[in-house]
Amino acid sequence: MSEGIKFRILQKAIELFNERGFESVSMRDIAEELNISPGNLTYHFRKKTDILNGIISLLMEEHNKMNYKPEITLTEFDSILVQVEEHQKRYSFYYKNIIELKNKYPEIAQLQKDYKLEFIAIITKTFCYLEQNGWVKPEKRERLYEDLSVAILAIAAFGNQIDLNRDMREVIWSMIYPVLTEEGIKEYQTLIRRLDTSD
Amino acid sequence: MSEGIKFRILQKAIELFNERGFESVSMRDIAEELNISPGNLTYHFRKKTDILNGIISLLMEEHNKMNYKPEITLTEFDSILVQVEEHQKRYSFYYKNIIELKNKYPEIAQLQKDYKLEFIAIITKTFCYLEQNGWVKPEKRERLYEDLSVAILAIAAFGNQIDLNRDMREVIWSMIYPVLTEEGIKEYQTLIRRLDTSD
Repeated sequence: MSEGIKFRILQKAIELFNERGFESVSMRDIAEELNISPGNLTYHFRKKTDILNGIISLLMEEHNKMNYKPEITLTEFDSILVQVEEHQKRYSFYYKNIIELKNKYPEIAQLQKDYKLEFIAIITKTFCYLEQNGWVKPEKRERLYEDLSVAILAIAAFGNQIDLNRDMREVIWSMIYPVLTEEGIKEYQTLIRRLDTSD
Repeated sequence: MSEGIKFRILQKAIELFNERGFESVSMRDIAEELNISPGNLTYHFRKKTDILNGIISLLMEEHNKMNYKPEITLTEFDSILVQVEEHQKRYSFYYKNIIELKNKYPEIAQLQKDYKLEFIAIITKTFCYLEQNGWVKPEKRERLYEDLSVAILAIAAFGNQIDLNRDMREVIWSMIYPVLTEEGIKEYQTLIRRLDTSD
């Protein structure tokens, strides 16, 4: 039962943070929206920071569930991008405040740092794998694929700050498209056609 | 004389903001470092926000001096990247707090928005020009060059947030390299050799 109410508190907090911004939502607001007393709320989460930590745990759990491996096809890579986009929508307050949260909470700074290194490493490995399979051209400039991975991270993490008017996924495909081989372009076009018909 | 002291105040403020962060520096700190009275400081700039506005004006002035035109060679494009990097070092506090400042000051949000649209438009035009001159391949995917321009903006504006361990300029060249024609690669290599020998 206690787990149920904790989960409900976290879900409501995510909803309110996304709607009104992390800073503008008070513990009282969360209690009110849940129709519980402030005392009941602080029994489960002493401070707003504790709620934040709970949300970060959920967020990381969902991240891990994506179960990203470097040995993937272009289609699988695209489905990862879709999952990342959905994840960003679900935790939009976190991505909107990604820098403030980093500056304010050392644990979040550490998580972001670990995640950044892991992200760049795994995308770089994906490029190697795609190259070995003939979907992506051999690297002709030193560290090209590592740099592209950094650029993909920048768009994935900060694209919403730029307020793109353009799908993050489309921008990332535009970065990858020029390094695709003819074989890779063929797989990419099959993928795109499937997306068009499923819309 | 009044212009001289105003300029000195702004320069000292930039130095302190870069060193200690915008939020941590008080009007009193700035006066102390300049060996002037707080009253003298507030005579020239009533509030820290007025100093910030003065700095933003300098920053924009320097930006405009770069005099960026879309009709440029790859070498000229590279020298723009060098200028952007130097600019970011000179105003590092601004780029470190680019999102906080946006959220706090509506005028800065507006400036950033205008700048973003202008940046994407001009880089997209540069790609068109480079394509017309045979340095860059014809666009094979719709909006490819516009998307690359967005990705370049993301790296230029947020690269320091990611804490790259890698030159912004190198990452941007890795994004452009795959769309260069043989002719373009030749010009790029001449450029790189010149950089190597000048180091």
